[in-house]
Amino acid sequence: MLTPILDSGAAMPLYEQLYRHIRGEIEAGRLAAGERLPSKRALAAHLKISVVTVEGAYGQLLAEGYLQSKPKRGFFVQAAESALTEVQLPRLSPPQEATRPTFRYDFSTSAVDTALFPFATWAKLMREVLSQQEDTLLNTPHPQGVPALRQAIAAHLYRFRGIQADPSQIVVGAGSEVLTTLLVQLLGRSGCYGVENPGYTKTHRILRSCGVQVEPISLDSQGLQVDQLDQHGVQVVHVTPSHHFPLGIIMPVTRRQALLRWASAQPQRYILEDDYDSEFRFSGRPIPALQSLDKGERVIYLNTFAKSLAPSLRISYMVLPPHLAERWRREFWFYSSTVPSFEQYALSRFMDRGHFERHLNRTRTHYKARREALLAAARETGLTQVGSFVGGDAGLHLLLWMDRRWKEPELAARAAEVGVGVSPLSICDLTPPPAGRPPALILGYTRVAPQDMAPALSLLKSAWQF
Amino acid sequence: MLTPILDSGAAMPLYEQLYRHIRGEIEAGRLAAGERLPSKRALAAHLKISVVTVEGAYGQLLAEGYLQSKPKRGFFVQAAESALTEVQLPRLSPPQEATRPTFRYDFSTSAVDTALFPFATWAKLMREVLSQQEDTLLNTPHPQGVPALRQAIAAHLYRFRGIQADPSQIVVGAGSEVLTTLLVQLLGRSGCYGVENPGYTKTHRILRSCGVQVEPISLDSQGLQVDQLDQHGVQVVHVTPSHHFPLGIIMPVTRRQALLRWASAQPQRYILEDDYDSEFRFSGRPIPALQSLDKGERVIYLNTFAKSLAPSLRISYMVLPPHLAERWRREFWFYSSTVPSFEQYALSRFMDRGHFERHLNRTRTHYKARREALLAAARETGLTQVGSFVGGDAGLHLLLWMDRRWKEPELAARAAEVGVGVSPLSICDLTPPPAGRPPALILGYTRVAPQDMAPALSLLKSAWQF
Repeated sequence: MLTPILDSGAAMPLYEQLYRHIRGEIEAGRLAAGERLPSKRALAAHLKISVVTVEGAYGQLLAEGYLQSKPKRGFFVQAAESALTEVQLPRLSPPQEATRPTFRYDFSTSAVDTALFPFATWAKLMREVLSQQEDTLLNTPHPQGVPALRQAIAAHLYRFRGIQADPSQIVVGAGSEVLTTLLVQLLGRSGCYGVENPGYTKTHRILRSCGVQVEPISLDSQGLQVDQLDQHGVQVVHVTPSHHFPLGIIMPVTRRQALLRWASAQPQRYILEDDYDSEFRFSGRPIPALQSLDKGERVIYLNTFAKSLAPSLRISYMVLPPHLAERWRREFWFYSSTVPSFEQYALSRFMDRGHFERHLNRTRTHYKARREALLAAARETGLTQVGSFVGGDAGLHLLLWMDRRWKEPELAARAAEVGVGVSPLSICDLTPPPAGRPPALILGYTRVAPQDMAPALSLLKSAWQF
Repeated sequence: MLTPILDSGAAMPLYEQLYRHIRGEIEAGRLAAGERLPSKRALAAHLKISVVTVEGAYGQLLAEGYLQSKPKRGFFVQAAESALTEVQLPRLSPPQEATRPTFRYDFSTSAVDTALFPFATWAKLMREVLSQQEDTLLNTPHPQGVPALRQAIAAHLYRFRGIQADPSQIVVGAGSEVLTTLLVQLLGRSGCYGVENPGYTKTHRILRSCGVQVEPISLDSQGLQVDQLDQHGVQVVHVTPSHHFPLGIIMPVTRRQALLRWASAQPQRYILEDDYDSEFRFSGRPIPALQSLDKGERVIYLNTFAKSLAPSLRISYMVLPPHLAERWRREFWFYSSTVPSFEQYALSRFMDRGHFERHLNRTRTHYKARREALLAAARETGLTQVGSFVGGDAGLHLLLWMDRRWKEPELAARAAEVGVGVSPLSICDLTPPPAGRPPALILGYTRVAPQDMAPALSLLKSAWQF
């Protein structure tokens, strides 16, 4: 009979010790298929343990298919399976997690100045939201996002962007990647998607990952070249008209109208208007969004709180034209909202009580000071003698066109060597750039304090020797 | 000369009033293309406003492309575009938001008992996380999720599921929909995906939306019929072996091994193991996950905190086999994590300090009491005379097979009429069910208090007249 060594003083329950022992015997072949096990009562008496313990072990073995129970006959070992075919794969040892380089002065464009985040207010609102302990807070929220937040976003868009959107047209999602992925499901994979070149290459990658054909569309001084859309058979185009990334072009109204005319010419054409940093405009009134000029329900407006609040919040949203919003509800009702309700309720209160507007004003002032400090330091170090900054009226980065005596990769590499992180324009190229394009660097200035601009640019001066 | 009526007492700045006036004149055609505008100085004098005001208005019009500036010659109206082609679309009035029915007693499976959520602890941890005000809290987290959370998940999986997973294999995401969408991008769209039939139809819909071919695979008493996978040319299969939804089948070890053998036979075959409610097992030890039996790196393990904490938290995760984790980092590095860092840090602390384990134990006890109250009420009302419950050892729902005298849709409809929400099994069918299958209903019991089981079942008795 089975005689495992059971230790009643061990942390592992007795039934589990017994289960493991029998399972081991079966796997090793010492208990053969078809063999009958002792009755529960007999085994309990043999091992001086309770019947309940044996029942626990047998029950588990039955549940897992190691044993079979035949009524009035007892427990039998189930036919064992031959060993699994092992596919030999090179075992990766140990798995590496990629790391991002860190710089003493980091002019990256993907971060914000976290010191500006309204922690106290946010913590207070979170506490408030959590203390309500509402049922609605915990169960699955509306697939498009909680109504209070969509209402707040609609009010904000109307006030600050002149955009008329009913909350029923808004879909909240965990970042533009998630929304873009959903849009491909909504707009289909059969048509070709156009993206700006140079541009935000992540959009290109996401669309490619979603299995659609993507065509890079080149730009002129007014932005995307609309006539190229037909040439490339584009059906859906992604644009950043408020502030092109990275060139900083603000698309003029005539070009916007040309783009809208292109979209209106065919019923399946759409424009994805990515308004990613439109909150940061430092002079004049913001230019009307494409969405607000659109009469034909051709524009899907996308924006994010990543730049205006914090990237780690993961809250973006889109405004669908009414006919697409209706299709969304009909076909994508099964998707859950991807943003936690806690954050959605906290953000809606943040907006309703004017905190968001105040935060934006405060942040805009801060960033403007940085931009000015950067430009002042550039003049003082003589950088403006060998290069010129463009795109400074809006957004959170500047493009620095450099004298042709340098090569772009070399400039970025030398800057990195002295601890200054700047990106070459080429990271935004989807195709080889036109021959003779001068070298250029992208400088996001959200992470460098005003007083650090002069030392940072002195380092660049020594690295580039201008 | 232009003569707008400007109101210096209005809330709108003067420059904007002027900008709007000129823009209106251009759009209406009263200022024709090519026409020269008065100089800034002349217009300022004419309107008795400052030159700065005119500059503001002209600057905006220039930026938007309504005007053109010719050096030393002045400002000219830009060539106007012809009116946009308006696509006539039926304007939806007013957009409807779909609503979900509410019941007096709701046996739905998509919700949890929100009274069990550890609000006080969660609020305390959130406050703690927020008060750190760490830079890492606000900027883009690691694309796979913050390391502390992946570490906590790995420790939990090892302790409670016998799963050995390095944190580098784990990807955290905003719900299984998001993770499934990403998996399709990782595993490709060329192969066919198999799903359980009946099953969790949402998986089917998501996969279809992602543009892949999906084949429903039928089940027998041991779960998914592995031999059908070859017949249907399946390459990737989604299964719920711990507790099939909705039939409650626990896949025995022999079937698990057969499934793993199937996957090992071809290098591009994978198993998506959805362990969605494995935390709720009411008797015996949990069955080893497919992942822990897998020697060939064929299994992708998926789980969620939707059932164990709250659906609205939107935190799920997957464990990729090492070779896929490496490919993920190589090819999908550009994806941002979809879960806010705040939640990720709060949850990692919640797990590290043993709160999650305590919460699970507490929740399990609560739900067990509900399940027992439901079964007791079923016996008392005589429901067990006309139907039988299955799937009670694990998970958070029971399947109620009914006597053939009733029709499934009628049972659900009559229950709804008396305020009891139960789902017919047919909502899980991807193809017409086998002829002669008895009617069955799915009863999730997380939302009905123990003392409400008797009144709920009395209502069913009156509705169904048994």
